[in-house]
Amino acid sequence: MLEKLKEATLEANLEIVRRGLVLYTFGNASGIERDSGLVVIKPSGVDYDELTPDQMVVTDMNGAIVEGSLRPSSDLKTHLALYEAFPSIGAVVHTHSEHATAWAQAGLEIPSFGTTHADYFHGPVPCTRELSDEEINGDYVLNTGKAIIEEFESLDPLAVPAVLVAGHAPFAWGRDPHEAAHNAVVLEAVAKMALMTMQLNPTAGVSQALLDRHYFRKHGANATYGQSENS
Amino acid sequence: MLEKLKEATLEANLEIVRRGLVLYTFGNASGIERDSGLVVIKPSGVDYDELTPDQMVVTDMNGAIVEGSLRPSSDLKTHLALYEAFPSIGAVVHTHSEHATAWAQAGLEIPSFGTTHADYFHGPVPCTRELSDEEINGDYVLNTGKAIIEEFESLDPLAVPAVLVAGHAPFAWGRDPHEAAHNAVVLEAVAKMALMTMQLNPTAGVSQALLDRHYFRKHGANATYGQSENS
Amino acid sequence: MLEKLKEATLEANLEIVRRGLVLYTFGNASGIERDSGLVVIKPSGVDYDELTPDQMVVTDMNGAIVEGSLRPSSDLKTHLALYEAFPSIGAVVHTHSEHATAWAQAGLEIPSFGTTHADYFHGPVPCTRELSDEEINGDYVLNTGKAIIEEFESLDPLAVPAVLVAGHAPFAWGRDPHEAAHNAVVLEAVAKMALMTMQLNPTAGVSQALLDRHYFRKHGANATYGQSENS
Amino acid sequence: MLEKLKEATLEANLEIVRRGLVLYTFGNASGIERDSGLVVIKPSGVDYDELTPDQMVVTDMNGAIVEGSLRPSSDLKTHLALYEAFPSIGAVVHTHSEHATAWAQAGLEIPSFGTTHADYFHGPVPCTRELSDEEINGDYVLNTGKAIIEEFESLDPLAVPAVLVAGHAPFAWGRDPHEAAHNAVVLEAVAKMALMTMQLNPTAGVSQALLDRHYFRKHGANATYGQSENS
Repeated sequence: MLEKLKEATLEANLEIVRRGLVLYTFGNASGIERDSGLVVIKPSGVDYDELTPDQMVVTDMNGAIVEGSLRPSSDLKTHLALYEAFPSIGAVVHTHSEHATAWAQAGLEIPSFGTTHADYFHGPVPCTRELSDEEINGDYVLNTGKAIIEEFESLDPLAVPAVLVAGHAPFAWGRDPHEAAHNAVVLEAVAKMALMTMQLNPTAGVSQALLDRHYFRKHGANATYGQSENS
Repeated sequence: MLEKLKEATLEANLEIVRRGLVLYTFGNASGIERDSGLVVIKPSGVDYDELTPDQMVVTDMNGAIVEGSLRPSSDLKTHLALYEAFPSIGAVVHTHSEHATAWAQAGLEIPSFGTTHADYFHGPVPCTRELSDEEINGDYVLNTGKAIIEEFESLDPLAVPAVLVAGHAPFAWGRDPHEAAHNAVVLEAVAKMALMTMQLNPTAGVSQALLDRHYFRKHGANATYGQSENS
Repeated sequence: MLEKLKEATLEANLEIVRRGLVLYTFGNASGIERDSGLVVIKPSGVDYDELTPDQMVVTDMNGAIVEGSLRPSSDLKTHLALYEAFPSIGAVVHTHSEHATAWAQAGLEIPSFGTTHADYFHGPVPCTRELSDEEINGDYVLNTGKAIIEEFESLDPLAVPAVLVAGHAPFAWGRDPHEAAHNAVVLEAVAKMALMTMQLNPTAGVSQALLDRHYFRKHGANATYGQSENS
Repeated sequence: MLEKLKEATLEANLEIVRRGLVLYTFGNASGIERDSGLVVIKPSGVDYDELTPDQMVVTDMNGAIVEGSLRPSSDLKTHLALYEAFPSIGAVVHTHSEHATAWAQAGLEIPSFGTTHADYFHGPVPCTRELSDEEINGDYVLNTGKAIIEEFESLDPLAVPAVLVAGHAPFAWGRDPHEAAHNAVVLEAVAKMALMTMQLNPTAGVSQALLDRHYFRKHGANATYGQSENS
């Protein structure tokens, strides 16, 4: 079952490796079939070069394993919380990519310093608050998801398809596994350029008009980028 | 038609990918045939590893498509404005290469810190002013070209064959697609070294005599570099 | 004799090369068979791409060569001191990996800025005091080992499986050569992210509860990461 | 004639490319046969992947071409000045490697921050003074060599086998082309680590005793590193 979603999810896992976002097994991608509420996710701690579609784990929205003989990624509950809170998304990617993780460790949102950022993220990439000791010692992985969701109370998750978890690392998402992996890769590039921008000019910034112009160039009914009418 | 220019323009597009200047589809190269006023440009949003010479789009100087079934790069009007304003250039390359983009996002020109810079750029690589909201909400891509042209009112575009667009990214050019791509690659290296130079010594600088010496070593009637008499 | 340990030690030497931690011959890995007290170590100054299991040098705990026709790594006495002081470790890896070496040269411990660090190192990665002139002019390589051991008087070497030697470079270790090399690779990534974190926010830091949560996620009786019951 | 030296010089040219020190044609290596006073050097502006031993240019110590149909590197006179002033060296390598060039552009010597540096360079890597306008407008390439030689009035060129030319880039050398290229590669790594060390701790530094210990570990009658008696 879910063969196409397994293949797409595996491909998203491989894409983040090919693009240099993953050291050893520090990352995972999942995808959801909204009709059935079933989630396909990478198994925990398995080397990427050994991964096959068959090894992908299928769970329901409560995390119960429906198919697969391996343990799912230890971050499963964060993925599930995001799927429940953000009905518009179809896939989640988590990495410890170096530059985005540095921003997460610094506890800072990534400001929108230019059009590369604005082409993908309509506003700063937010950073969660720190979790309390109680949240850490309790259902930590679920509470990580809840802290992310707090940041999006007044944000559209498809308009800002990534977040930094303070002291941890980034999560990105999209309408499908391909888009989620793509957003994670762009996030890392944006994070690297933003670090250098701050080193050159700590007061750098651009107008909201420019950010809007680029975001809507690629998104929404009036998008003009690429070969399809609305891409 | 224009088979040689299509191949040279495709090759310039591939060179910026090979040299690590391009993530996914963030970049484009074009070339112009001055006799006919026809421009060859990369199609918008097509993967580089699928590009063929046949897919290159041919337009006239007004942007009307003369040949090709795909949409041209969304930056076409910037390219056309540069071809009109700078009669000496034969090709334009746009990238979001990381270090040059960081300088563009910082809104700063790249100072001429040494001979690597001076071998290619006779003076700082300028950064445009920010566009007004009116320019952004109007014919944005054309207005980007106009802001670049403003910076070159008193500069020879072949003596400083690149620019940073504030809050966006670099454009480079040259007499042909090969040279334009080469200049884009050198710009990125120069931008990286300039960032590190500023981190080591914020007051670094060299004499105009040294910059002149290196620039004219490679350019003009008395050039001594390479194997041809005047290269 | 010791064929399996030779192969595992060679593989650890190759892993640190593959991961970009080693320039030319700047690094070495060793392993110990605790029953016999025999140590397998890389020969000194031999190119990695020529290394064979047969070339690995076998010594006893006093450094006397038991097998092999080549000189052992010039750092042998540091390795031996660590094996004697830390009975729980089975392998040692030394590199001059760039970011960890920068921290060592700065004479600073690497703070625990996030979960990537905490997954492997339960607390900051310490930096030794500088050696005295007397220690340097005396049995320098042994005294390097002694300075490391001083730092671990109140630390469990398997809970913090790496150290920075001030003005020199890192050493990492583990229960076997595979784990020691893995820890050296993660140390370099953690060192790179910590440098960037400090550049973004010099007062960054996370709660002890978060560090504990991640460390014990991968270590000890209640570990939940990966496919084995306790990994 | 000089077939072995041509091959060794070509190999040094290729080594600096393989190690990422060279963009396009920004670098050159030469070697000298002391008995005949003949110098083998890379031709100017030729792509590295097309270079053959036959293309190497042979000149005498006055720069007169003795063999070869191509123009020699435009830096020839700097190489010749170094060969004349430093009788102990047998090869010279010039690159614009990124981190060493950043230090040269900053006009700063590279301090000896640790043992990686001390294994190769017995003291800081000096940076020349800036050339006067008169020196630049006169015999510039020769005057570059003279400015380097000034820095070594009280230094042994084999004990500090590299220099930074202010506002330009590094030169390295050694007893033969292999060693000169090796020193250029290590210089770049040392320059990168020194930049990061300064970012972490601007007052970093190590004792002279440690620097001496490491330098003499690899050099002189009491060297203990590697497989030969004196390497």
